[in-house]
Amino acid sequence: MDFANLDFERKKRTGFPEVVFCQGKNDSFLVDIYKKLYERDGSVFGTRATEHQYELVKAELPNAQYDNVSRILKVPGKDDSVELVGNIAVVTAGTADIPVAEEASLTAEYFGSKVTRVYDVGVSGIHRVLENRNKIENANCVVAVAGMEGALASVLGGIVSKPIIAVPTSVGYGANLGGISALLTMINSCANGISVVNIDNGYGAGYIATQINRLAVGSSIEK
Amino acid sequence: MDFANLDFERKKRTGFPEVVFCQGKNDSFLVDIYKKLYERDGSVFGTRATEHQYELVKAELPNAQYDNVSRILKVPGKDDSVELVGNIAVVTAGTADIPVAEEASLTAEYFGSKVTRVYDVGVSGIHRVLENRNKIENANCVVAVAGMEGALASVLGGIVSKPIIAVPTSVGYGANLGGISALLTMINSCANGISVVNIDNGYGAGYIATQINRLAVGSSIEK
Amino acid sequence: MDFANLDFERKKRTGFPEVVFCQGKNDSFLVDIYKKLYERDGSVFGTRATEHQYELVKAELPNAQYDNVSRILKVPGKDDSVELVGNIAVVTAGTADIPVAEEASLTAEYFGSKVTRVYDVGVSGIHRVLENRNKIENANCVVAVAGMEGALASVLGGIVSKPIIAVPTSVGYGANLGGISALLTMINSCANGISVVNIDNGYGAGYIATQINRLAVGSSIEK
Amino acid sequence: MDFANLDFERKKRTGFPEVVFCQGKNDSFLVDIYKKLYERDGSVFGTRATEHQYELVKAELPNAQYDNVSRILKVPGKDDSVELVGNIAVVTAGTADIPVAEEASLTAEYFGSKVTRVYDVGVSGIHRVLENRNKIENANCVVAVAGMEGALASVLGGIVSKPIIAVPTSVGYGANLGGISALLTMINSCANGISVVNIDNGYGAGYIATQINRLAVGSSIEK
Amino acid sequence: MDFANLDFERKKRTGFPEVVFCQGKNDSFLVDIYKKLYERDGSVFGTRATEHQYELVKAELPNAQYDNVSRILKVPGKDDSVELVGNIAVVTAGTADIPVAEEASLTAEYFGSKVTRVYDVGVSGIHRVLENRNKIENANCVVAVAGMEGALASVLGGIVSKPIIAVPTSVGYGANLGGISALLTMINSCANGISVVNIDNGYGAGYIATQINRLAVGSSIEK
Amino acid sequence: MDFANLDFERKKRTGFPEVVFCQGKNDSFLVDIYKKLYERDGSVFGTRATEHQYELVKAELPNAQYDNVSRILKVPGKDDSVELVGNIAVVTAGTADIPVAEEASLTAEYFGSKVTRVYDVGVSGIHRVLENRNKIENANCVVAVAGMEGALASVLGGIVSKPIIAVPTSVGYGANLGGISALLTMINSCANGISVVNIDNGYGAGYIATQINRLAVGSSIEK
Amino acid sequence: MDFANLDFERKKRTGFPEVVFCQGKNDSFLVDIYKKLYERDGSVFGTRATEHQYELVKAELPNAQYDNVSRILKVPGKDDSVELVGNIAVVTAGTADIPVAEEASLTAEYFGSKVTRVYDVGVSGIHRVLENRNKIENANCVVAVAGMEGALASVLGGIVSKPIIAVPTSVGYGANLGGISALLTMINSCANGISVVNIDNGYGAGYIATQINRLAVGSSIEK
Amino acid sequence: MDFANLDFERKKRTGFPEVVFCQGKNDSFLVDIYKKLYERDGSVFGTRATEHQYELVKAELPNAQYDNVSRILKVPGKDDSVELVGNIAVVTAGTADIPVAEEASLTAEYFGSKVTRVYDVGVSGIHRVLENRNKIENANCVVAVAGMEGALASVLGGIVSKPIIAVPTSVGYGANLGGISALLTMINSCANGISVVNIDNGYGAGYIATQINRLAVGSSIEK
Repeated sequence: MDFANLDFERKKRTGFPEVVFCQGKNDSFLVDIYKKLYERDGSVFGTRATEHQYELVKAELPNAQYDNVSRILKVPGKDDSVELVGNIAVVTAGTADIPVAEEASLTAEYFGSKVTRVYDVGVSGIHRVLENRNKIENANCVVAVAGMEGALASVLGGIVSKPIIAVPTSVGYGANLGGISALLTMINSCANGISVVNIDNGYGAGYIATQINRLAVGSSIEK
Repeated sequence: MDFANLDFERKKRTGFPEVVFCQGKNDSFLVDIYKKLYERDGSVFGTRATEHQYELVKAELPNAQYDNVSRILKVPGKDDSVELVGNIAVVTAGTADIPVAEEASLTAEYFGSKVTRVYDVGVSGIHRVLENRNKIENANCVVAVAGMEGALASVLGGIVSKPIIAVPTSVGYGANLGGISALLTMINSCANGISVVNIDNGYGAGYIATQINRLAVGSSIEK
Repeated sequence: MDFANLDFERKKRTGFPEVVFCQGKNDSFLVDIYKKLYERDGSVFGTRATEHQYELVKAELPNAQYDNVSRILKVPGKDDSVELVGNIAVVTAGTADIPVAEEASLTAEYFGSKVTRVYDVGVSGIHRVLENRNKIENANCVVAVAGMEGALASVLGGIVSKPIIAVPTSVGYGANLGGISALLTMINSCANGISVVNIDNGYGAGYIATQINRLAVGSSIEK
Repeated sequence: MDFANLDFERKKRTGFPEVVFCQGKNDSFLVDIYKKLYERDGSVFGTRATEHQYELVKAELPNAQYDNVSRILKVPGKDDSVELVGNIAVVTAGTADIPVAEEASLTAEYFGSKVTRVYDVGVSGIHRVLENRNKIENANCVVAVAGMEGALASVLGGIVSKPIIAVPTSVGYGANLGGISALLTMINSCANGISVVNIDNGYGAGYIATQINRLAVGSSIEK
Repeated sequence: MDFANLDFERKKRTGFPEVVFCQGKNDSFLVDIYKKLYERDGSVFGTRATEHQYELVKAELPNAQYDNVSRILKVPGKDDSVELVGNIAVVTAGTADIPVAEEASLTAEYFGSKVTRVYDVGVSGIHRVLENRNKIENANCVVAVAGMEGALASVLGGIVSKPIIAVPTSVGYGANLGGISALLTMINSCANGISVVNIDNGYGAGYIATQINRLAVGSSIEK
Repeated sequence: MDFANLDFERKKRTGFPEVVFCQGKNDSFLVDIYKKLYERDGSVFGTRATEHQYELVKAELPNAQYDNVSRILKVPGKDDSVELVGNIAVVTAGTADIPVAEEASLTAEYFGSKVTRVYDVGVSGIHRVLENRNKIENANCVVAVAGMEGALASVLGGIVSKPIIAVPTSVGYGANLGGISALLTMINSCANGISVVNIDNGYGAGYIATQINRLAVGSSIEK
Repeated sequence: MDFANLDFERKKRTGFPEVVFCQGKNDSFLVDIYKKLYERDGSVFGTRATEHQYELVKAELPNAQYDNVSRILKVPGKDDSVELVGNIAVVTAGTADIPVAEEASLTAEYFGSKVTRVYDVGVSGIHRVLENRNKIENANCVVAVAGMEGALASVLGGIVSKPIIAVPTSVGYGANLGGISALLTMINSCANGISVVNIDNGYGAGYIATQINRLAVGSSIEK
Repeated sequence: MDFANLDFERKKRTGFPEVVFCQGKNDSFLVDIYKKLYERDGSVFGTRATEHQYELVKAELPNAQYDNVSRILKVPGKDDSVELVGNIAVVTAGTADIPVAEEASLTAEYFGSKVTRVYDVGVSGIHRVLENRNKIENANCVVAVAGMEGALASVLGGIVSKPIIAVPTSVGYGANLGGISALLTMINSCANGISVVNIDNGYGAGYIATQINRLAVGSSIEK
């Protein structure tokens, strides 16, 4: 832990605790971070973890939990039973986008937001998203997760009035360019109210959606 | 006319007469081509012409006609009253896409196809395209013209059963990359039945739509 | 199967049954989908399957069949003996393009189209495609499959009068950019009548070719 | 006005009136739209207008107003004196980013939001943004406008807790790739809470910031 | 002339005299270079000149000649009647490629090579290039000039046995990416014997073709 | 062997026998091709082979030979002792470029050309290439093989008078973009006499170099 | 001047006075900045100015000076006669690169560095740079300015031991991609000691070269 | 060792010994180079080595040492106890950038420079870099190592006066484009004094930093 500059003031500064990006972290280094944060905060939340990383952390912190869809590796606190507030709609185009969507949903829930999941309602069967219009509109903000051509965000922008956080995914092949194509679609959307995060960045979308949700429910970060 | 190898057999080979791509053609060269083709075929059809090119051709061939939306420069034959057959739907996302759509529509009409225009029904107001669903489905094939993020093609792919020729346009700014972004959207569409032509290539789409329309109405090219 | 929104109306809406894109699907999830669709439709057709996925599906649905060239994993219905109609020419530049071509051919056959295969007739030996000109021209539409520089589509566009669905493949190396180079060649073709689908998208080309073939043989989707 | 499908339900559906994107619009077409919307709504707001377009509209609607920094062309209503609510911070890296920032600021004000401007506080003199930290933190959300390398968004993400709408601008030269470089910086930010809109899209940022600001002040769109 | 380091040894070193690239040269600087080289060598040859540059040079060197197709600005020597040797075929896909082809042809002739021009024989009418097969095969090497998708080079590679210098041109629009698309086609060609120069680089192709032609006719550079 | 259209006329048409591109070929298919060609021609030459492919071919054709630097898999004829003619210089920037260079050298030798190897003389130690200047100049043409920034081709262009075939390699990392960077360097060279083939395409360079070498030594392909 | 946040502490913080980037600045805004800085500092230095901007500034500050090669617009102080120290070599590949080189040279001189200019010594005539080897080696650092393929930096890296600041220029055409190609060459250089600034960024190179030169001559910024 | 042209004069010419780039080197070839250089120089330093390569070299040269963070494989000399001089600050944005930073730090130390490490002080917690301002300013030059959006370099450019060598890393995902995004950020920086090396090129940065550090401490390479 010589090198890592843990950011002890982050929660105070931003209202959000520090979260671990597990991907590519050295084994012993990862375990150290989990232990350090668990000692300090009483709980740890990490994204993009592998089964192997789960085994390593569990050996040290036996109540570690792993969700193999979202790849979230969590060590829950003694009392994590916070009441979830507000409402965020997380919507996906296809089933292949669900891992990224679950990263967003679980992140938002970890940060205290209530989440409404509306999955596999992509534009190739447009009736599916139209049928869920009210459900989505009722949320304070919308996370739109889509790969391939990413048209879902634009369609949502045309039917709901709430801010939309668009998450391009790397789902697809050929000219999808690993998600760049969906990203460009979302950035160029003719619909209003759409802003975009990095490819597959479910965590980032869950974070921003929570920021907006908190503003909507009036919960200040000091609470 | 030393250099140009006019393709006298094209109509016989493909069922379509030769068409002039006016853009960038040298003034005197353009006028020569129009005269030569008018002598040979009795009519001429050209795309991407400027007002200036219209003036030049009109000075030599006084019945030349220019449409300043589609930029088509035409010298009609003595009797151009062919009956239009079949049905092609030409659909645009916005009003800015209309010049490209009109290039497609007028091309298809010049080649003998009946055209149904459905303009300005982009996904930011999805009800507009849904209201026109039957009108579009009734056609033998669909030309979908859209710039910015180009999501229109995917939405159409989800609601109609006919082949869709998608035309990305250069309409937009910033990360639209001059139309590349819309092209990528259309190529990566999660909906079936969509194939794509070059950016702003209304002519190409009108040509292919006519090929398909002819197959549907049973008019072989030998007729 | 909580998440997947199977599209039960698709066949009615588009005239085509639902098809499974196997690539990247979770093992248990894939088997579930195959079983569900088999119960509902009496047959299942999936693309981009692996040997391993075949084993999994076969364990549950013993009459599953796998074609290791096209990678199609099919569970045929009790009576699949539909009469194939019309004619689609599927043409490849090289032998390495055959897997994509077979995906197109088998898809078109599954959807009821007769297919004429003309493989390995690329432009480096131009006589090979010229010798097959009539055979290709006799089809209602043409699927042109080519990697590397993808020039085959342009050459076909110059010698046949039927609509051409061009499929760029990822065959090649270096500056082929995983197929983007062939895609650009086909999108920019100087020949008429060419529209393009995604890299390696044999399925999409077989689908569109069938749409066109059906229009040509007069079989409406209601039949 | 034959072609344009004005979206009369937009305000009811989204809580925002229709806005005109003037760039590239045909002269007579633009004037028609301004007149039509003025008749219907009693006021018109347009972005990316030129001096020339201002002259044309003013000739028909004499109380038209033009702001030559933001390029906004507005025909105010008889009583536009709505009270501005909430608080949005609009921050720029340099002076060259101000036109885009003013597009965002004036848009937000038109939609009823109070705006705090913090301009020319780019990271090459980091003390400037640090000195304005509290002023920015006090807003409900932040619009971060920056060209060149666009690092401002990341720095803001590290010091404030509110959602940040990042607007890359085309300011710069060489490898800025017309703004793509700043867009990539913002999309890849290591800081949390940042989502991104298209290059130079001040209008889009002002729109989203208003959506968030409204949620924060509790004004529902039904009011 | 303080800054320019004229390369007085170039002819001795490479067998080719120095040539002026006129594009973007400052007016007075250009005239100085033409005068200096004319004094030294007795003749000057420049590429990419404008009409305006021609006027400037002609005012000082009255026997200057300008070709407005190739944009070559030449001041011929007193006795330029060298006998042209060997044979280079310069072939173009379309008429719009002729300016680049003429730059190649006139360059090759200036350097002493005989040139056979075969223009406007692109692949959309494949019979045109096939009819000229023997004419092209008879040359020592081939310069293939093509824009749009640039398929001409591959077709030539399949029918002739001589080395082909492929010149992509910027002719085209949309996804031609200013000639990058044609360049990629040529670089990825499935045919053998093709090497590629920069977009629109007719001069470079004429130079290399002359190097090869000289080797074939046995004229060493010392002669 | 149903699908493969072996090109029996190639040697007659181009003066070069057919060569096998082994990479990605199906095992049994590859062995079939080797056997078929061996029967027909008495020898086979293939590029980009793996050790595994060598084992497979050797099992059927015991005199198969494999070179693990160039990855060439060859079945020599009974009497391959042709006299090598002319002279081709094959030059590399670094040692990592040698596999591509050897593919070029062995190809050229297989086609009957004498080769002078000048390896590891890159520009970071410019004296190394200068010391070999005469050796390189003495060849009829030069193959310049370089990865990373690919500057070697330009330096050679400045010091020798012979045509240079530049081969960019994928050697390097980061912004080398898999060889695209070296390719761009070579295409944009300020030196004359340089034309470029695909990344890592040693075979193509050896082929073209032989075409030029044959022209220089006066051996026509009819002989 | 409401918006501009002039950076009054910059000189103290960095040892360099504030410099004006004139390109794209609004007329009245530019004149205001020049006046403000002249009042504060007694002299002003600006880059990328136009003749028109010079006229405007001269009208207010009559001793303004404009250099139309480097496009530097300077208002010298009463006593600018600082003694230039150390030694920086500024080297260009061609004459077209001189404007960028002069921006670097004049910037370095303005900041107090002595400059040795070595212009037009590109690699197509490698002897030119070799002849200047000692002159370049004698400097404390080297600014290498080159467009097209940008190979100059690598060659310099191989022959001198001093740090090289490489400046890619937008000189060239076609696949030079506006300078991106030269930038990639320089970033991927196989030679050591090379770091790179933005395309055409002569100012930036002159600045860094001065930082290094000051370190070498031991002048701390406090002096 | 036939092919490798070891550069025996490099140290004399540049003041730096030859260093081995291990990545991708053939096993036996690598061991040969290590042995040859050890014999000649008494010590060897190599970058980007694997554990496996370490085992191979250690078997022949038992005092070989491997650092698995930086991946440096070193065979120290008998007396490597040179006194480190001057001061270079090596700064990273995150912990994932440390391997590249250590490559830079160990390289600089190997070449005789004293290094101050300041790791994990990225802009998402801007206070961390501000707290280390004096420590960084005290160095003669700064190496700034950052992936993702790479904003660290710009922030450093705004707070220190010393030359900054920016090293983009491939750390990140999605639109980071393998480090291209960070590279573009650094190249386009609005701050002065920043020049850039290739993605992950810690070695190159350590080399240049040493060149500058030597100039600052007055140690000429002749010493």
